[in-house]
Amino acid sequence: MRFTILREEFLKGLSTANRAVGGKASPVASLVNLKIELNERGLFITGSNYNFTIRSFTPYSRGEKEIIRNYKEGCVLVTADLITNIIRKIESEEVMFEVIDSTNAVISNNRSEYNLQCVRADEYPDLDLEPDGTELSLTRQEFTSLVSQTAFAASLKEQRLILTALNLEASNGVLVATATDSARMARKELQIPQEINFVTNIPAKMMEEIARLVAESENVKISISDKKALFSYNGNVIATRLVAGEYPNTKNIIPHTIYHSLEVKSQDLIKTIERINILSVERENVVDLYADEEKVEITAKSSQIGYAAETLENYKYTGQPIKISFNSDYVLTAIKAMNCEEVVLEFIGEMKPFVIKNPQDDSVIQIVTPVRTYY
Amino acid sequence: MRFTILREEFLKGLSTANRAVGGKASPVASLVNLKIELNERGLFITGSNYNFTIRSFTPYSRGEKEIIRNYKEGCVLVTADLITNIIRKIESEEVMFEVIDSTNAVISNNRSEYNLQCVRADEYPDLDLEPDGTELSLTRQEFTSLVSQTAFAASLKEQRLILTALNLEASNGVLVATATDSARMARKELQIPQEINFVTNIPAKMMEEIARLVAESENVKISISDKKALFSYNGNVIATRLVAGEYPNTKNIIPHTIYHSLEVKSQDLIKTIERINILSVERENVVDLYADEEKVEITAKSSQIGYAAETLENYKYTGQPIKISFNSDYVLTAIKAMNCEEVVLEFIGEMKPFVIKNPQDDSVIQIVTPVRTYY
Repeated sequence: MRFTILREEFLKGLSTANRAVGGKASPVASLVNLKIELNERGLFITGSNYNFTIRSFTPYSRGEKEIIRNYKEGCVLVTADLITNIIRKIESEEVMFEVIDSTNAVISNNRSEYNLQCVRADEYPDLDLEPDGTELSLTRQEFTSLVSQTAFAASLKEQRLILTALNLEASNGVLVATATDSARMARKELQIPQEINFVTNIPAKMMEEIARLVAESENVKISISDKKALFSYNGNVIATRLVAGEYPNTKNIIPHTIYHSLEVKSQDLIKTIERINILSVERENVVDLYADEEKVEITAKSSQIGYAAETLENYKYTGQPIKISFNSDYVLTAIKAMNCEEVVLEFIGEMKPFVIKNPQDDSVIQIVTPVRTYY
Repeated sequence: MRFTILREEFLKGLSTANRAVGGKASPVASLVNLKIELNERGLFITGSNYNFTIRSFTPYSRGEKEIIRNYKEGCVLVTADLITNIIRKIESEEVMFEVIDSTNAVISNNRSEYNLQCVRADEYPDLDLEPDGTELSLTRQEFTSLVSQTAFAASLKEQRLILTALNLEASNGVLVATATDSARMARKELQIPQEINFVTNIPAKMMEEIARLVAESENVKISISDKKALFSYNGNVIATRLVAGEYPNTKNIIPHTIYHSLEVKSQDLIKTIERINILSVERENVVDLYADEEKVEITAKSSQIGYAAETLENYKYTGQPIKISFNSDYVLTAIKAMNCEEVVLEFIGEMKPFVIKNPQDDSVIQIVTPVRTYY
């Protein structure tokens, strides 16, 4: 096996696949490696931690531009960090890669030579990267907004594993993504073709990583079976395990009767809460909001430190006066995720979950449960 | 006590003093605070961890520009992080600060109010910030090059405390700064007035922090006594403790007879060593250099991983062939600290300390001890 390749293209393929490697020690020793395979279609580089697998693809040429030349097909395993690091730091335009016997791979250019111990390809586990089940194609914008507006609300705690997932449900021409850690919930809808139906639970952290990876592509093709979820873009393939279990029914959490409504510029509210937050550290980031038609005030009080209060300048409020306490991080993250100019907070009562909405876009909704306070 | 102040100026004074606060728990509880004192000269803000003290100064006005107005003199202690954070996040041009009774300070602008618990000024320890002993004035460039080219070579280990210091010795019109961790040494000389004489040992980490702090000033005034070192710039004062003990005699370490000399572009050598370093991890960053008049090669070998070799393209070498092994981090840090286009390595023999020099500037010299290798 050997090939001469444009360094930048090799680095891109290696770095992409390398993002699936590592972190916690893998159950399979050979997964510290990348699987580097050159076949008649091009160069395939696979990295995996068993739960999450990325296979990057580099073609022999792109349009007029030759990428890989002087080659002989083959397949080998090389330590992931090592080869990625070497190709990152080499400065020549092209590098040569050659497996000289089954245990030695040489990376070289005109000035340098790296002789790396390598492993035979058949020691790599058999990872299923074939699409099966239901298929769905989304634009990159659709896919990233689906993830960025919801996945943050999933639980980080493994005690109730199903809540670490992003729940995806496709039916009746709508794809709904839902994440909740039981104190807050985020939900986003997309229009999709009528005939597509599935329900699946994908680790939210992995969805966030996939959203980062697809950032340069135009489309993402999703394939969902009962064993795995597969994401394809630009010839690359990402596979993730699913979260087992039944997702809780969240449909009844969204309130329909609203008694109080506050509309305000997102940045004003974010900055005010962030300032008041300085005094909320002792109370686990709990801040208080008081609103009536004359005044909206955000306050925080700490018995050890002191007291902070700030009034909002521009807002629209309708309803009776209300005083409500909430976790400021939950509210800040929800507003930032929606990334919109204005934001509407809708309240039912002091101890009832409240809604955070983008007045320009009803495909996304954020729900936060207030905090009960005793002072 | 009260004053109205331009927020940016207040923030600068607070942030500067705050850099001396915190880290490890202080032996004196009141040092979590900043001491905020307004007197007839202006605003003085003091922060300290007992070993390191910074007192920032903000005048009532600078030229035409009024900074502090509507004031009443006084002195109070306020939690350092808290007030710095509040003033950083407030958005108005001016803020008001007022001590309403001896335990409550109020920071406010037209929209917000922060009521902070505070402490009476007499609970703050008495910190000596008066200059005494020998005085010396340096330009900021002189001061920062003195520190940046030497302090990194001091030891980080507290077992032999004296080696954590930067040694400063002024005599015969020359100020010499020396740092060594016993495996490497850095030494820099500056011309100073003939009559100034002192020897002192200042924690190298603190010297690096001071060099960062003075970055915006034109001059630094140093005052050295047998109890403390004091640094003054732009009205601000920094005091540091000294390191007790006698600094080792390093004068005989610098070799005078050179048998091998290698001149090379700094960036070429840095990048080559950084690439080869990828394979030196198992050997504690040891890389090997081979040089003769035909070829200069840098190599690293790891029994578990593989082998790397790279030749340099442009160099001047004089002397018999030599092969020498060294800690690549030591050599990289030394070359980067000198920040010069070309670098000269001078060798006496394979097991003798070698010299790294800037061919354009003989005021600075770096010495590195080779590593003994058995393979």
